Amino acid sequence: MKLAIYGYGNLGRGVEAAIRMNPDMELSGIFTRRDPKTVESKTGAPVYGADEIAAHKDEIDAVILCGGSATDLPELTPKLARDFNVIDSFDTHANIPAHFDAVDAAAKAGGTLALISCGWDPGMFSLNRLYANAILPDGTDYTFWGRGVSQGHSDAIRRIPGVLDARQYTVPIKEALEAVRTGKQPTLSAREKHLRECYVVAAPDADKAAIEQAIKTMPNYFADYDTTVTFISAEEMREKHRALPHGGFVIRTGKTGLAAEHTHRIEYSLNLESNPEFTASVLVAFARAVGRMRERGRVGCLTVFDVAPADLSPLSGEQLRRTLL
Amino acid sequence: MKLAIYGYGNLGRGVEAAIRMNPDMELSGIFTRRDPKTVESKTGAPVYGADEIAAHKDEIDAVILCGGSATDLPELTPKLARDFNVIDSFDTHANIPAHFDAVDAAAKAGGTLALISCGWDPGMFSLNRLYANAILPDGTDYTFWGRGVSQGHSDAIRRIPGVLDARQYTVPIKEALEAVRTGKQPTLSAREKHLRECYVVAAPDADKAAIEQAIKTMPNYFADYDTTVTFISAEEMREKHRALPHGGFVIRTGKTGLAAEHTHRIEYSLNLESNPEFTASVLVAFARAVGRMRERGRVGCLTVFDVAPADLSPLSGEQLRRTLL
Repeated sequence: MKLAIYGYGNLGRGVEAAIRMNPDMELSGIFTRRDPKTVESKTGAPVYGADEIAAHKDEIDAVILCGGSATDLPELTPKLARDFNVIDSFDTHANIPAHFDAVDAAAKAGGTLALISCGWDPGMFSLNRLYANAILPDGTDYTFWGRGVSQGHSDAIRRIPGVLDARQYTVPIKEALEAVRTGKQPTLSAREKHLRECYVVAAPDADKAAIEQAIKTMPNYFADYDTTVTFISAEEMREKHRALPHGGFVIRTGKTGLAAEHTHRIEYSLNLESNPEFTASVLVAFARAVGRMRERGRVGCLTVFDVAPADLSPLSGEQLRRTLL
Repeated sequence: MKLAIYGYGNLGRGVEAAIRMNPDMELSGIFTRRDPKTVESKTGAPVYGADEIAAHKDEIDAVILCGGSATDLPELTPKLARDFNVIDSFDTHANIPAHFDAVDAAAKAGGTLALISCGWDPGMFSLNRLYANAILPDGTDYTFWGRGVSQGHSDAIRRIPGVLDARQYTVPIKEALEAVRTGKQPTLSAREKHLRECYVVAAPDADKAAIEQAIKTMPNYFADYDTTVTFISAEEMREKHRALPHGGFVIRTGKTGLAAEHTHRIEYSLNLESNPEFTASVLVAFARAVGRMRERGRVGCLTVFDVAPADLSPLSGEQLRRTLL
């Protein structure tokens, strides 16, 4: 299967690496909105300008879009879906229905197959919520994130005057996790579920107390959480906070039995040293399914919910039944 | 959707309870190989003799088979698949390919849809192995079972002369779990992964030392494990060991990045107070998918790998995208 990468940041580089792990996959090219002469791929794959992609249509079975959810993907995914099978990681949960409709219309018009909101949340976490809900209709869902870097929260801190750099870790609170695991279905506030740890490089003349206050009172991002702010040097930021780890937990507890007398817990967790590389690995596995489903004639927009798991694997049905069932 | 239960033991009663949790499901009848006059259902559903099922064909969209894998299902599933859509929980891993072929041939001949080996292992654990393998091709799988009652091992102890009753708990070894979670991909022997805890009621005149020796040296079942044997009274067995808890862990750790420089862990775990009721709940969710896929024209044999998760849920695609993605 021949894949293209559209957008070459952390996620695009992750996809490039993931394709190398899958012998049935091949990288046809990387498409960038920067000047392609200034971009060198890590694996020697050709780099083209984003506007050149139409000329490479014959070399591409599917395009993996590696742009941001705020402004890039709402425009790009429907646009590219008119001509290509596409996979994106659109992750603004509230806007998924509208994005789905736009991409579905474009893919149906173009006779292509698209899969949106792929990765781990939305993505693998969503799948686990669905499976657990279908199995235990009488129950409660909990999702915890972290410990990991939230790019959105880090960016929000960077916009505060006097901040040169920032890194925000979302940390699940152990006591909340343990309370959920008991099966007693506690009601937990945002503050009870997660801590927010902030590491900030301030300008030399900045008012640190004002920065800390601005962070801790920021609505939506921090005001509803217990937040710690630690000022560090640019050097410490470089040394200790370069990685992009993440992960989390999806837990459903629920009851069965005619008198609801038995309690069960289903728990899925991820512990990721590189959020973009793991997300990329999920995208590449689902790209395989998109290729196969398109070959069987499917068009329109899908999500991870619509993909039979067997289509994610390079193994045949017979091999899967023998080795993994 | 109208379901029938074929076989009315622990699993069949679990299915009966699970159907009540799903408002889109209805129990048409329970079919038993005992004299139906001696069997009373827990919910008032009608009980029929097993050989009467053909007469009820119009009232049944799918049959959930609740028999054993050793002798019942290899014969019953293909037989019933000629006339009914069927779901079973066949769990003899080594014989799944042969069972699949037999059921597939019968279902294709009958124009029906069958799903075999459904439950949690095989079943939800298999799905998690597949997803994790597709995402992290460079990695290692680990499955731990327990703490929970193994019926097969309990039965093996009961066959020893002088044993009146027995209950065997499979217990995952904490240190092995922790070693796996580090991501270092250790090689672990059977003995390093699980303990076997046995509770035995011996006949008054039995030689307890001989029983303990017979258990601990039993090939395949116990000889390769550290095994504890505790003799208890029939009363203690009734009081403390009535429940059928189970569960376990499916863990894959693997690497990403061009230099395989990042390690990830994907972990799925179940903690079940009632193994048969949870298995039954999985069967009922997959019965929903069988009904829908048959309506779309699918025939033959499936496994959990072939079912798009959306088909397990009573919610529409639009509802799923809005609430669970």
